[in-house]
Amino acid sequence: MSPAHIFKRQHKIHFSECDPAGIVFYPQYFVLFNDLIERWVDTLMPDGYHGVIGARRMGMPTVHLEVDFNAISRFGDQVWLELEVVRVGGKSITLAWRCTGAGGEVRMAATQTIVMTSLDTHLAIPVPDDLRAAMERGPAPACPEKGASNDSDHRSAATSAPAGRSYPETTV
Amino acid sequence: MSPAHIFKRQHKIHFSECDPAGIVFYPQYFVLFNDLIERWVDTLMPDGYHGVIGARRMGMPTVHLEVDFNAISRFGDQVWLELEVVRVGGKSITLAWRCTGAGGEVRMAATQTIVMTSLDTHLAIPVPDDLRAAMERGPAPACPEKGASNDSDHRSAATSAPAGRSYPETTV
Amino acid sequence: MSPAHIFKRQHKIHFSECDPAGIVFYPQYFVLFNDLIERWVDTLMPDGYHGVIGARRMGMPTVHLEVDFNAISRFGDQVWLELEVVRVGGKSITLAWRCTGAGGEVRMAATQTIVMTSLDTHLAIPVPDDLRAAMERGPAPACPEKGASNDSDHRSAATSAPAGRSYPETTV
Amino acid sequence: MSPAHIFKRQHKIHFSECDPAGIVFYPQYFVLFNDLIERWVDTLMPDGYHGVIGARRMGMPTVHLEVDFNAISRFGDQVWLELEVVRVGGKSITLAWRCTGAGGEVRMAATQTIVMTSLDTHLAIPVPDDLRAAMERGPAPACPEKGASNDSDHRSAATSAPAGRSYPETTV
Repeated sequence: MSPAHIFKRQHKIHFSECDPAGIVFYPQYFVLFNDLIERWVDTLMPDGYHGVIGARRMGMPTVHLEVDFNAISRFGDQVWLELEVVRVGGKSITLAWRCTGAGGEVRMAATQTIVMTSLDTHLAIPVPDDLRAAMERGPAPACPEKGASNDSDHRSAATSAPAGRSYPETTV
Repeated sequence: MSPAHIFKRQHKIHFSECDPAGIVFYPQYFVLFNDLIERWVDTLMPDGYHGVIGARRMGMPTVHLEVDFNAISRFGDQVWLELEVVRVGGKSITLAWRCTGAGGEVRMAATQTIVMTSLDTHLAIPVPDDLRAAMERGPAPACPEKGASNDSDHRSAATSAPAGRSYPETTV
Repeated sequence: MSPAHIFKRQHKIHFSECDPAGIVFYPQYFVLFNDLIERWVDTLMPDGYHGVIGARRMGMPTVHLEVDFNAISRFGDQVWLELEVVRVGGKSITLAWRCTGAGGEVRMAATQTIVMTSLDTHLAIPVPDDLRAAMERGPAPACPEKGASNDSDHRSAATSAPAGRSYPETTV
Repeated sequence: MSPAHIFKRQHKIHFSECDPAGIVFYPQYFVLFNDLIERWVDTLMPDGYHGVIGARRMGMPTVHLEVDFNAISRFGDQVWLELEVVRVGGKSITLAWRCTGAGGEVRMAATQTIVMTSLDTHLAIPVPDDLRAAMERGPAPACPEKGASNDSDHRSAATSAPAGRSYPETTV
């Protein structure tokens, strides 16, 4: 695979994403990253995520997740949501996610394995060649990004995030 | 009140917002408009929506809603979400919302009445003067918009939307 | 139409339904009532709501809503969610909803108009005869309720709710 | 720790929990299990989950998750949601989750580590003795279960689930 690319987007934590403790209700992170993947595929494929799911009737369900929540995000915080391709297999795709605070501290990091499926049979199918190539290559520099709200999207070389304020100590 | 201003934002309908029929699950519209109000207040107030709710401990709960759903929005559709101030009362704010399709047809329109409250007592309080003035005036032209993702936000004079493809006939 | 029936269900407000103010995030009410309608149709039809939407490919989208929020519901509160058939028209169904607190005070009340549609065309279709008859009749007394979690469901004659602690005064 | 207990609850997959593919939108699983934990703590503690979070101002945020999605759940499916205490540490709690279909096949399994925190400081605090004891002991047999909707809740000795229809093959 060619050098990894990172797709990232700045996001301000909404009231609607927070719980009575005033911090992100953690299932909302999965919605945020599902939306991020959608925006990312929108930049990779001519017909976008919707074209893959809708017209081509392919599903991209999650089959495995490992997640560490290192620090809280509060209502109103500016965070970066980013994803990176770890591996494109025969029928699966492995992504790394990170949510980092304004200071670069990693608040949440995850590894997600997605399987390509047929939405008619819900069985695994090969990752289509055009999607594979685009994921390995990243968005073409000459190609203007699709979608109306991609203002804060960025592609960049991988950077290492400085350690931030840590979460409740988990060595217990 | 000075001439009305409209706050609008383009939005692509996410997979996460749709139901098994492939169209927006209607409660999601209320999340989208809650987020829109948040972005709008972010443009009006120096400390944003978060400053009003968080630091000043004021709530903006909804007390009345009237909503018409005129046409469906499908996964992947580009829509405009817009709001307009109808009235700023002593302790309440009335907004008009519209979701319009790319062709300008109104898919959903609503009138919402919000009451300002104290988050300590949950009782109504007067709309603060600075918020009232900002809502009546609209975002100052010279003031760069706050927030990281306001790329698609626009202020404009009210425009009339052409009638679009209508929803299932409701005169039954 | 035969005498109205009420379908009601007790519900304890979940953490997941509340916002940073510790009260129900209002879009969640629409999810709660959508789930209530689903449970209600489960008691009315042999194949349940899923049979109507899934096998018969009929949609029941909302076309009009009027909602009053009179008092807040907090995390942990026990409430009653209830619905009543107001009218079954040719292609539409009008329901009244109420969320009441343990003391009977009405916290939220709404009128919802649903239209029957074909999920293939998204156009309005007649309310099917069996659903119409069941909605007008209510669940048959001799018929055990379907579904695994209908423990707190009740059918009853309409009762008037005593006035409760009122919400932030809305006459402003 | 005394012998493990399992807390389980039957659940019918709602329309509101499904995506355009007609299957559970996976972030909804985390909401379902958050609600399950809430119901479980309601059976363990005199003042319920709300008493822990609300009156005692303790948080129970997730710090680590590992999840396998083995088979899909469709709209209308009857599933069992269950949790089991794996370990109660000094400041953390490790739970195992399973979602099983009517035939006993495991559709989703997870391990979750929760940390007790102060909601005032968001720092880790010791698991309170009464909660620890209750988690290790399980609900007292003589104690009627709290809450209005615990109809389908069950406590039982651990059972091994038969292998079910497997998900899209993940060895790719």
